[in-house]
Amino acid sequence: MRRLRVSSRNFDYEVVVGRGSWRGLRRLTGYSSRFVLTERRIWERWGKHFVRESRVAPPAPLFIPTGEQSKSLRIVEGLARQLAERGADRGSLLVVLGGGVAGDVGGFVASTFMRGIDCVEVPTTVVAQVDSAIGGKTAVNVGAMKNLVGTFYPPRLVLADPSVLVSLDARTFRSGLYEVVKHAILDGPEFFAQLEKCLPDLRPVPHGRRVRPGQGRVLESIIERAARVKVSVVSRDEREAGLRRVLNLGHTFGHALEEASAYRGFLHGEAVAWGLLAVTRLAELLGRLAPGQGERIARLVRRVGPLPPVRHISSRTILKLLPRDKKAVGGQIHWVIPERIGKVRIVNDVPLAAAARAWDDVRRGGWHE
Amino acid sequence: MRRLRVSSRNFDYEVVVGRGSWRGLRRLTGYSSRFVLTERRIWERWGKHFVRESRVAPPAPLFIPTGEQSKSLRIVEGLARQLAERGADRGSLLVVLGGGVAGDVGGFVASTFMRGIDCVEVPTTVVAQVDSAIGGKTAVNVGAMKNLVGTFYPPRLVLADPSVLVSLDARTFRSGLYEVVKHAILDGPEFFAQLEKCLPDLRPVPHGRRVRPGQGRVLESIIERAARVKVSVVSRDEREAGLRRVLNLGHTFGHALEEASAYRGFLHGEAVAWGLLAVTRLAELLGRLAPGQGERIARLVRRVGPLPPVRHISSRTILKLLPRDKKAVGGQIHWVIPERIGKVRIVNDVPLAAAARAWDDVRRGGWHE
Repeated sequence: MRRLRVSSRNFDYEVVVGRGSWRGLRRLTGYSSRFVLTERRIWERWGKHFVRESRVAPPAPLFIPTGEQSKSLRIVEGLARQLAERGADRGSLLVVLGGGVAGDVGGFVASTFMRGIDCVEVPTTVVAQVDSAIGGKTAVNVGAMKNLVGTFYPPRLVLADPSVLVSLDARTFRSGLYEVVKHAILDGPEFFAQLEKCLPDLRPVPHGRRVRPGQGRVLESIIERAARVKVSVVSRDEREAGLRRVLNLGHTFGHALEEASAYRGFLHGEAVAWGLLAVTRLAELLGRLAPGQGERIARLVRRVGPLPPVRHISSRTILKLLPRDKKAVGGQIHWVIPERIGKVRIVNDVPLAAAARAWDDVRRGGWHE
Repeated sequence: MRRLRVSSRNFDYEVVVGRGSWRGLRRLTGYSSRFVLTERRIWERWGKHFVRESRVAPPAPLFIPTGEQSKSLRIVEGLARQLAERGADRGSLLVVLGGGVAGDVGGFVASTFMRGIDCVEVPTTVVAQVDSAIGGKTAVNVGAMKNLVGTFYPPRLVLADPSVLVSLDARTFRSGLYEVVKHAILDGPEFFAQLEKCLPDLRPVPHGRRVRPGQGRVLESIIERAARVKVSVVSRDEREAGLRRVLNLGHTFGHALEEASAYRGFLHGEAVAWGLLAVTRLAELLGRLAPGQGERIARLVRRVGPLPPVRHISSRTILKLLPRDKKAVGGQIHWVIPERIGKVRIVNDVPLAAAARAWDDVRRGGWHE
């Protein structure tokens, strides 16, 4: 078990990663009442275990429907009403047990209920454990506009237990691993090599299951390492003005792909995987990537598992949907370009023709395959 | 014109009070775009003047319907959608021109749109100028639950021009003066005496109207002074844990009265006026109020103007609705008890029988009349 600390100008909280980390809730006393917000299927699978470990025994949790459509102000309003009706007040604690959606919505509810109550994030997916539950970003969508309304609000504590990942289906699990690959590219050769080495062993080990010596702690160690990358970045830049932008590696193409497919057909991590491939190719085309590195990155991304095909999505479509910075004249695109494993650079003047060619090279196949 | 500064641990912004203060917006440059949120009738009356003074010329403002029912997440969602559709981004500025409702909702929109954009509050009522626009509290209601969802979010700037108060109807104007009386009680004998002296002259002077020497600046000076009280309190305690509670003077009975009348029949300031009378009587009954002070406070409150009667609202009804602190065992009531003009004390152990008698003495009339 590893205690990490997010410590920036306005934020200061712990991220505890490892088997048994849920017990961290036992230390959190002094609240007038404690509430759990979760998804029904997560509670059915993990509720008993959660109560045993955390000793937080809510009369009944608040439930949020599974899926992106729960990221709405209508759901927020319903949750706030339920909290009030059950007697929550300014001294209450909200524990959010779930994946990215529950974390985003629960964090937003906590940040605005009676102008802010304490919130503990207990992430239950790979992406949430290494990324979305860390950093204090909360949000809901407005219609098709993703994360249009939200807050920066530090959780009181983040408790990530990787053994819960055993109940993820294989595709969702893999989707999170692509974000882990992204973190490894940002972090450097040591973590990247570790990931190359243990990728085949990356599977969750159920709680209580006997584990052969030397096996089973691999996932825990990788999750811990990947979470540390996020902790380190957001500690230095809690808002998005500067350094935090590096976390968008792979997300420029990725967002465009999600838009192009109307957020259907690709899990977020899968879109990021295609984005990582395309931006790595782009870095090669720009002559910015050190020799041999493109092949290593592409190989690791592909080894995670099969991706839904993108052959039918043209570079013209992608180019139109690249996220632009509206503050800049002409709508600059801030590319996060890998220069080598462990080093990226924000570049604003990438020719669109190069981006188009990178996308085409990747979607048609054959590049570093 | 007076520049005040709210300066606390997390907040730092200016509150400019006085004729011509809207020009302060000319200094605020560097935003990718600027939007105005206001009420239709305020824009019709003040829009041209606002554009001339502030040099903020929006293609068309965003409008919020007049009235408390606009304090909803549904309205927030609509405003966020409109902002996005008009191209607002993280570098945009939202200027909120209006009274308490617009300020609360507009502040909440600004604090959550793309996780927070800058907001300038331009309050147009007495209550907003001396109280609600200062301090960074934003909120919307959920059903009948007032201010259940909100944020603490500092405005970039507050610009209060008292000459805009000329367009308030007499009752709304007076309603705000009761909050000014509250601020004077909190502040001390000097401000209180000033208010006693110039109450008859407190009326807004229209822009452009010629003003006799020595006349017309009275209101400006009183508004500035009252705003300074709020600035001083929130600078020392931006959240509500401690000192800020003194601002609830008169609000304990006042809230109960608003609840008892289902927020109809009394303007907020009128309910506070009855609350000030009742809590002053309570302080007398508890033997906590210095001699002669009760009569002075009651007299000043009554001189502001006629109040809607409360004879029909029993002390039993009021007692049931007193706001309780759910964090404390048994639901303590935090009374803000005046000890003399310029000194209040938070008291938690007031016998309910005394509160009942204070209310009855006040509602039946005869006390210091």
